[in-house]
Amino acid sequence: MTFTDDQLASLNANPLYHAIGIHVEAVGEGRGRSMLRPEAAVCWPTQGRPHGGILFTLLDTTMAFAAISNGVAGTGCATVDCNIQYTAPADHGPFLCEVDTTSKTSRTVFIRGQIKDRNGSLVALAQATFRLMPPRQP
Amino acid sequence: MTFTDDQLASLNANPLYHAIGIHVEAVGEGRGRSMLRPEAAVCWPTQGRPHGGILFTLLDTTMAFAAISNGVAGTGCATVDCNIQYTAPADHGPFLCEVDTTSKTSRTVFIRGQIKDRNGSLVALAQATFRLMPPRQP
Amino acid sequence: MTFTDDQLASLNANPLYHAIGIHVEAVGEGRGRSMLRPEAAVCWPTQGRPHGGILFTLLDTTMAFAAISNGVAGTGCATVDCNIQYTAPADHGPFLCEVDTTSKTSRTVFIRGQIKDRNGSLVALAQATFRLMPPRQP
Amino acid sequence: MTFTDDQLASLNANPLYHAIGIHVEAVGEGRGRSMLRPEAAVCWPTQGRPHGGILFTLLDTTMAFAAISNGVAGTGCATVDCNIQYTAPADHGPFLCEVDTTSKTSRTVFIRGQIKDRNGSLVALAQATFRLMPPRQP
Repeated sequence: MTFTDDQLASLNANPLYHAIGIHVEAVGEGRGRSMLRPEAAVCWPTQGRPHGGILFTLLDTTMAFAAISNGVAGTGCATVDCNIQYTAPADHGPFLCEVDTTSKTSRTVFIRGQIKDRNGSLVALAQATFRLMPPRQP
Repeated sequence: MTFTDDQLASLNANPLYHAIGIHVEAVGEGRGRSMLRPEAAVCWPTQGRPHGGILFTLLDTTMAFAAISNGVAGTGCATVDCNIQYTAPADHGPFLCEVDTTSKTSRTVFIRGQIKDRNGSLVALAQATFRLMPPRQP
Repeated sequence: MTFTDDQLASLNANPLYHAIGIHVEAVGEGRGRSMLRPEAAVCWPTQGRPHGGILFTLLDTTMAFAAISNGVAGTGCATVDCNIQYTAPADHGPFLCEVDTTSKTSRTVFIRGQIKDRNGSLVALAQATFRLMPPRQP
Repeated sequence: MTFTDDQLASLNANPLYHAIGIHVEAVGEGRGRSMLRPEAAVCWPTQGRPHGGILFTLLDTTMAFAAISNGVAGTGCATVDCNIQYTAPADHGPFLCEVDTTSKTSRTVFIRGQIKDRNGSLVALAQATFRLMPPRQP
């Protein structure tokens, strides 16, 4: 499935994304794309450079929505585990995150993602495993 | 080395920890301990449950200080990569994070950590690789 | 459950372990212990030092049996993913591998393991996720 | 640099690859490609399906040569850590492994790889960190 503009707008209106500076731009068919314009509060201990945990959060949340988009409407998911590599200092935002499903079974989804800075340089790479939770029956 | 109370107080007075609800309690000799009393803003999409990226941030930042404590005063560090497993829903805070250095060379430090909820149940496990950066010469 | 001596003997009599030099010593209640006395053929490219993939194989196979021992007799398992760190050169065999279940749900098991050389020095650390497969109904 | 046919032939003539069934086909400019035609001895516990540790060995060794090819002649390397995901049962060999450098600094190289079965289906994915060791001065 693909998230509609209304769904994306609703999804982006949450306090976590607001505190960090995350905006999910597109989700559908196992893929996702988001932007990080980091708030000053999350650029610590180096001014202008988001904390590694913030880059992780950007990847994890974008991958989770991409995972969900492999299921039917109402599907949920949980991150089972995730491996992240920090390839270069993240000094030049905003940051573009792109993720893609590499493989899936009925309940398990494998996703890879990356973050690039405004110059197109790679700053982080991740691969993660998600468990899908089917919609609750009414 | 071991961080003094003054060093810990100074370290904890940063906007990232304030936005999230992190407090580093002890760092020294390759080990670290911290607490997460998650702010409401970072408990999304499930009320009362910190986002997985917030749990990662708690582990990463505590491990980074533990890594630094393997070096001399003024040593810095960078996370090379980290693997995190989410073993159970994190519904019962506050959360205690404990980390320990497993092995080190002159520049590379390997650290493992865990987060437990207020009942002592494990909610996340991580193992990470850090690079130490020696203090700048004056 | 705990593997009996007969089960361990049967399990150890396989061509993979023979080619590599693996011997599983104990498995039970989510834990496992094994030894690697590496065959010359798997010590490449450095004589006397087993290839990193051989150390991984030792960890993965020991963790898989530990995972299975969380279930009832006849349970199978599959490695979902595994993260390994190589902390020091593995020059001083034989090598002792010890693994332990850190957390489990009905179907997913999280395990950590380590390998030490004959001096008790750590050479590798792993954490992995396994899926249990219940016994087939007759 | 790029490995010549003579270098590849020399590299492939080792006892580990012979015991497993690995053949490195091409290495150069940070990339690598290899094939696994698994020997019967390494297809255990399921006939025809190479052990997960064997798939890991294929990825690790191919990535290591790709890492080395980022340096000058005589460069060595060590695997720092590696994360592998098993996306599907590996029942349909031979298996093609392809790896690529994603990012590098002067001493640290990040590489991603994958293994596909003879039908082009993904069976394993890895991302790893390597440390380069410059050639010894004469």
